[in-house]
Amino acid sequence: MDIADAIKNRRSCRDFLPEPIDESTIEQILQAAISAPSPANNQPWEFVVITNQDVKARIYAEADERRKALFQKSGWKWVDRYNVEFLKRVPVIVCVTGDPTKTGADMFTEGGGVAYQHACAAAIQNMLLTAYSLGLSSLWFTLFDKDVVRKILDIAPDRDPLALICIGKPGGELFVTPRKPLAEKVTYLR
Amino acid sequence: MDIADAIKNRRSCRDFLPEPIDESTIEQILQAAISAPSPANNQPWEFVVITNQDVKARIYAEADERRKALFQKSGWKWVDRYNVEFLKRVPVIVCVTGDPTKTGADMFTEGGGVAYQHACAAAIQNMLLTAYSLGLSSLWFTLFDKDVVRKILDIAPDRDPLALICIGKPGGELFVTPRKPLAEKVTYLR
Repeated sequence: MDIADAIKNRRSCRDFLPEPIDESTIEQILQAAISAPSPANNQPWEFVVITNQDVKARIYAEADERRKALFQKSGWKWVDRYNVEFLKRVPVIVCVTGDPTKTGADMFTEGGGVAYQHACAAAIQNMLLTAYSLGLSSLWFTLFDKDVVRKILDIAPDRDPLALICIGKPGGELFVTPRKPLAEKVTYLR
Repeated sequence: MDIADAIKNRRSCRDFLPEPIDESTIEQILQAAISAPSPANNQPWEFVVITNQDVKARIYAEADERRKALFQKSGWKWVDRYNVEFLKRVPVIVCVTGDPTKTGADMFTEGGGVAYQHACAAAIQNMLLTAYSLGLSSLWFTLFDKDVVRKILDIAPDRDPLALICIGKPGGELFVTPRKPLAEKVTYLR
């Protein structure tokens, strides 16, 4: 698939078919992830690939708890309506973790120490684009408590679980989210 | 260009030719940026496109100051040797800023309030891939003090300048940075 097409037309879906995804397909997606740039090429990412049904059920339970807690705190109506049961149906969830010590020069700056997260986000974007190019839907999910996810997935305390990337065949209507016009976002210093 | 090729084979270069880049090309790259996903589609990014030579010279001066200060703090030898004069030569520098209020649900979590940065990093990755697909080299530069860059570029105090993305025709040998094998980075929970 053409790169411009993948970037511009990547569609999302709020649900997934439970149909399994080949491990070779997952590997293609992860090879794309580790091709992202990172501070001084320190490659601060690690991945936990979850296909185990019990583990998915525990992630669902945690996400649903978090969702309820978030609604209490925020009062946001979409959170009240948000159904996270897709976490049980989706065939693959990839937990992307970062190593906070691999953050490069920003460890010396105020508000810094987050460049490892930027690298992991670039890796995630590569995953989403690659999944789309392979006919799969994907979803960048962050509604969880990091300590709970560390416990469920047996992740070391010094690693930062940044996102759960859900990947599977689309289980509903695909949509492109609209964007504000570029002109509202750009200033030129010519 | 094929998406897998762009992601896997994107090459970098440590210098740029000063030859100008069309604004229509810059717009293509920025359209890719704003196609990135963001928390509840809040699109937390803004861009300052710098082609003005005086502004580039001021950015260079700031980066070189920072570089010296970083060497003092870190003692890292590569920093002592690192020549940032390419900042004066590169035809285009895009400052990517984030709006910290547009960070979604993570504003309620410990160590949160950074999801807007993740979205901006995904936008940057789209920029790098698109630049490469257009035959351009690009470099994700972060060696600067945010307040100084705010002053140089007239960026509001409530915006977070996250990166300076340098874009131009390659001015030296292109190289692919090596990656650790995927197997070192992945755990399966089957």
